[in-house]
Amino acid sequence: MYIYKPDYLVMTAGPTMVSGNVLQARAKAFGNPDLDPDFFTFYQSVCDKLKIFFGTEKAQMIIMNGEGMLALDAACASLTEKGDEVLVISNGVFGEGFKDLILQYGGNVTIYESDWKSGLSASKLEEFLKSKSNFKFATIVHCDTPSGVLNDIGPICNLLKSKGILTVVDTVAAVGGTELKVDEWNIDIALGGSQKVFSAPSGLSLLSISDDAWDAIENRTTPIPSFYCNLSYWKNCVEEMLFPYTMPASDIMGLNAALGNLLSERPNRVIERHEEMRDYTIERLKDMGIELYLNDSFSPTVTAFLVPEGYDAQEIINHMKNKYKILIANSYGPLKNKVLRIGHMGENARFDRVMFTLDNLEKTLCDLKRG
Amino acid sequence: MYIYKPDYLVMTAGPTMVSGNVLQARAKAFGNPDLDPDFFTFYQSVCDKLKIFFGTEKAQMIIMNGEGMLALDAACASLTEKGDEVLVISNGVFGEGFKDLILQYGGNVTIYESDWKSGLSASKLEEFLKSKSNFKFATIVHCDTPSGVLNDIGPICNLLKSKGILTVVDTVAAVGGTELKVDEWNIDIALGGSQKVFSAPSGLSLLSISDDAWDAIENRTTPIPSFYCNLSYWKNCVEEMLFPYTMPASDIMGLNAALGNLLSERPNRVIERHEEMRDYTIERLKDMGIELYLNDSFSPTVTAFLVPEGYDAQEIINHMKNKYKILIANSYGPLKNKVLRIGHMGENARFDRVMFTLDNLEKTLCDLKRG
Repeated sequence: MYIYKPDYLVMTAGPTMVSGNVLQARAKAFGNPDLDPDFFTFYQSVCDKLKIFFGTEKAQMIIMNGEGMLALDAACASLTEKGDEVLVISNGVFGEGFKDLILQYGGNVTIYESDWKSGLSASKLEEFLKSKSNFKFATIVHCDTPSGVLNDIGPICNLLKSKGILTVVDTVAAVGGTELKVDEWNIDIALGGSQKVFSAPSGLSLLSISDDAWDAIENRTTPIPSFYCNLSYWKNCVEEMLFPYTMPASDIMGLNAALGNLLSERPNRVIERHEEMRDYTIERLKDMGIELYLNDSFSPTVTAFLVPEGYDAQEIINHMKNKYKILIANSYGPLKNKVLRIGHMGENARFDRVMFTLDNLEKTLCDLKRG
Repeated sequence: MYIYKPDYLVMTAGPTMVSGNVLQARAKAFGNPDLDPDFFTFYQSVCDKLKIFFGTEKAQMIIMNGEGMLALDAACASLTEKGDEVLVISNGVFGEGFKDLILQYGGNVTIYESDWKSGLSASKLEEFLKSKSNFKFATIVHCDTPSGVLNDIGPICNLLKSKGILTVVDTVAAVGGTELKVDEWNIDIALGGSQKVFSAPSGLSLLSISDDAWDAIENRTTPIPSFYCNLSYWKNCVEEMLFPYTMPASDIMGLNAALGNLLSERPNRVIERHEEMRDYTIERLKDMGIELYLNDSFSPTVTAFLVPEGYDAQEIINHMKNKYKILIANSYGPLKNKVLRIGHMGENARFDRVMFTLDNLEKTLCDLKRG
């Protein structure tokens, strides 16, 4: 019988390594989440913990059963009506990817394209909006992992709100590892996943939904063309004690333990730890003579760098994995094979792991040069 | 901090109790399923195990990250085009429920309604199809849990195939606990979930997809209006080593252990065990003077019975849970509060658990009468 037993350190931009107490929380017996009133109390308590990381008291948090892509698809399905004008703000692979999600629901997409090597600028976007601003909503990526850019989304979301444009923010690879202030920044829908900074296994989508977003969803003139991606089923699910489907109690028990770990450490300290790991990673890469992909706006969760001249991206990855038992990642789209990435998020944003990774990247470059 | 720690035996029609080795398989470290070639081998090996329970060598199995409802929604999203004629074969709450899933994708629904207290009859359906048979596909529920009916889907799916109608079979609450022969019965899409007979936690949708179903999906004239429910992304995912999203490696490791348990016991013996538990449950209920809901076609996975006169459904459930630490279930839709249900599927189809449940149901009826 085939046994799957990986023996390497996962230093990618998610999923991350998972703590033992999180794995054990998933290994406990659980009740029937459809029928047990205690489960609804538990679910709400986990949502309340999430609110701390999302920086919101006003928004509603929901936890859906599916990978982070479900959150993105559900937000687009629930907001977009045929013919709606939607602004896709893009400075990376994932930023651009929102286009297809919106087109499939009949939205008219305008792409605001910005330099992939730098963070988004609110003032430049403001210029752009002078020519056209009749958008129902805009999509923005907080940390676009293929390049490791961290966008300063606060001023951007507040600007959009001032123009009456709803915001959908993909913060899957950022929330927890950097500041997120859903209320202060007026973010309408923020999207997270379990397997990034929270360092729980993949499988849960985490969404904050503002009153304005609920209004937009409830004031649609056409029905939401989906069951699984239909956010409207979630609005009153705790009060009515009726989820749209059987909730993954075991996965949520794991997430609860993962959030507990970060709360014990204190969320502000967790962010500091991520910044320290980013700074350390950048410094070490520079010391090795490696060129970073970005000019500015380096995310504290992942660092992208150019494949040094004379090396092959996949060869570096394979050598790291096979000889040193560390998995780092290639990039996506046009950056594939040109850019490599080290994830330092969640449980991987630890000095020992990051140092071990960089030490062995250095050895790898040396090994491959000799070979 | 709120602690969720249920202390009761879950004897509902899923989720079921989960074995210790399945919980522990979920508590093991896992790699990065996006990037590790070994994960694709592992995923395929779990699909191959599933094929044994689905009774197929020819169909492709896929595992999606979401509760069983995702499987239903994805099948409807991927097959239905606006204006398609779809037959919804219904003899229960879930049978009827397919209607809404198809309407949301613009299908024209014809409902073939059959007596809820009996299994479907292929010969009666054949009569009906004489008047109208221009359906692209038909939906059928194998075990409709709210009533506990098990439909003899083999002759029905073969009949539909002979008319050129594709079949979508919801076998979420049946597969593993009763015979399923996807190849022999010519089922085009069969839909399962992790939390029923397989007794893994909720969170995975399991689908078999025939060549005819792939042809229908690939020959659409309009795009599938969904990302998360789009089956077409799955056709070549193993060959191309690219899943549509990060796979829930940990959940699949749990499912793998759960399938291993059933394979060790032997799939035929597992089915016999379910039949024994159904027969025992029915006999005990009759001995207590309790009336069964169905006239025939009792599922080996769940038994539904009428709330005895003079009793309140919720009071029985609450008393069982609070005093005897066993959770049984109410029913849904028009059967709610009239019908109660004992799940005896997967790890719950064990004599000690079923006997303990029935003994305490008897005590409960006695307690509440005195009270």
